[in-house]
Amino acid sequence: VGCFARLRIYEENARFVLICIILIVYLAFGAALFHWLEWENEVDERKAIDTRMNEYRVDYCRGKPENECDFDEMVRFITDGATSGLLNSRSRFDMLGSLFFSATVISTIGFGTSTPRTQFGRFITIIYGVVGCTCCVLFFNLFLERLVTGMSYILRSLRERKIRYRLKESGNKPVTLLLNNEDFNESSSSCEGHMDNWRPSVYKVFFILFSMCLALITASAGVYSFIEDWVYVDSLYFCFISFATIGFGDYVSNQQDVTRMSPDLYRLVCVGVGCVVDEEIHYIEMNHCSRFVNFCLLTLGACFFYCLSNVSSIVVRQL
Amino acid sequence: VGCFARLRIYEENARFVLICIILIVYLAFGAALFHWLEWENEVDERKAIDTRMNEYRVDYCRGKPENECDFDEMVRFITDGATSGLLNSRSRFDMLGSLFFSATVISTIGFGTSTPRTQFGRFITIIYGVVGCTCCVLFFNLFLERLVTGMSYILRSLRERKIRYRLKESGNKPVTLLLNNEDFNESSSSCEGHMDNWRPSVYKVFFILFSMCLALITASAGVYSFIEDWVYVDSLYFCFISFATIGFGDYVSNQQDVTRMSPDLYRLVCVGVGCVVDEEIHYIEMNHCSRFVNFCLLTLGACFFYCLSNVSSIVVRQL
Ligand SMILES: [K+]
Ligand SMILES: [K+]
Repeated sequence: VGCFARLRIYEENARFVLICIILIVYLAFGAALFHWLEWENEVDERKAIDTRMNEYRVDYCRGKPENECDFDEMVRFITDGATSGLLNSRSRFDMLGSLFFSATVISTIGFGTSTPRTQFGRFITIIYGVVGCTCCVLFFNLFLERLVTGMSYILRSLRERKIRYRLKESGNKPVTLLLNNEDFNESSSSCEGHMDNWRPSVYKVFFILFSMCLALITASAGVYSFIEDWVYVDSLYFCFISFATIGFGDYVSNQQDVTRMSPDLYRLVCVGVGCVVDEEIHYIEMNHCSRFVNFCLLTLGACFFYCLSNVSSIVVRQL
Repeated sequence: VGCFARLRIYEENARFVLICIILIVYLAFGAALFHWLEWENEVDERKAIDTRMNEYRVDYCRGKPENECDFDEMVRFITDGATSGLLNSRSRFDMLGSLFFSATVISTIGFGTSTPRTQFGRFITIIYGVVGCTCCVLFFNLFLERLVTGMSYILRSLRERKIRYRLKESGNKPVTLLLNNEDFNESSSSCEGHMDNWRPSVYKVFFILFSMCLALITASAGVYSFIEDWVYVDSLYFCFISFATIGFGDYVSNQQDVTRMSPDLYRLVCVGVGCVVDEEIHYIEMNHCSRFVNFCLLTLGACFFYCLSNVSSIVVRQL
């Protein structure tokens, strides 16, 4: 037994080395791919930006002595303001903003539109994050379990119904077409004890989960392109970047002061949640509503994508 | 058995609801906490920025007709340049930059210092990310397994040595102090078959992992405060935000054209990797070296923090 266990350890080490090599190759492939996709555009954009910046510089420095023009300093100032989110008129650390910040920390999305600016705040962020990320990982893991359990339950009852239907159709004579005859031997026992051991294959779970994620991301992208007035592809990009908890921060939902949510969508959500809609629509309420939709979509998306990446990593491993 | 299984499902549903409630309370707590920590500073900073921006505006608009001053447009232009990283002189999508971008996608750190600007690039990012994130999750999971296996192996041999030592000390007469006498009954069998079933408790693993993470983050923060010239707390903040794959992007390592790595650290790394150091130090080589150190630290940190958050979520669950 000991020798066998040792052999298995060697095998698993080999598998680990293999995935390392695959990742390195995949990264090299990505380097070539994105260089090919983006480099030309970057050169063009850089040229355009340089030209424009020089125009601004000339404009700003007109009528000033050569070495007294603080254009570069101004650019640095504006850049810092943009990175910290302070140039955006929306408050970052009011109550709702802090809630948003906390959520970006513990979900590890980390958009970076609001970040702590004091050193004490940064230190507390570390401690808050350690505890929060742990809880959030636990939440994701429990969600994965609940989802798989729920799926198994539904698939099992579907299978049971199918077996019962075949039994009825064949007039209660033994059915040789079924793979496993034991499945319906104790069909009338209470608490469905006979099929408790049956579990759907990981491929089936993966396939269902993949379809659900695809449906979710397509629908969410539609909603965001409505609310935020983005092109559909950009909306799709935002959804993926957020759901996979990458969170670049180039596209972030709900950063405008006034939502561009359409009144129809607002009515739909309100009916869905079960609240009353007046004839005239208040913008504050619509802001709250769009925040609520945003929160639900991001949470749901992150949960489902976590499940998908875990289940598909199991599938890849079994290949 | 069926009824029992159903009871267990109810219990686990209750646990899931519990973690949801805990997370919501924790988020609300975070909202209050960060509002308290950061709000005052934000108000002050905003006031200072507004004053300064007005000065710049007056300066820029001097001698122009009232409604012809395009200051706001310029600010928007600079802001966009800052967010996209194009104002930074460092290329984003040259080969090494693309490699960095790919790594931020698949590790889900997503600093956001370089993001795709073309719509086709964004679409490809989605596909690249789906495959890459799956592989990366698999890598993290295998790393976790390898680490725990390695730890078990070391702890087991330590335990074996202890038992042998006690056996020797007690002059081969039966030791009643030991909890489990079966452990050393077959002490001389080949391939150590007798202790294969022994596993260290999850608390022990958690404690060791926690210490390792603490050591790693303290050391890395020291290295970064050397290389990047950051205050130690900021360096610690950067390490945590990166290792936990939050990746806000307010602090990002290796964004300067010339590294500020000290020659001593460079020599140390070179000796560690086993390459030769000339007497005179070339800056290009130092840049490569600091990139290499950066890559190693981030990979190691992300792996260890992934393990820590998973193991501690198991510990929390067992409470
Ligand atoms: K992340
Ligand atoms: K991020």
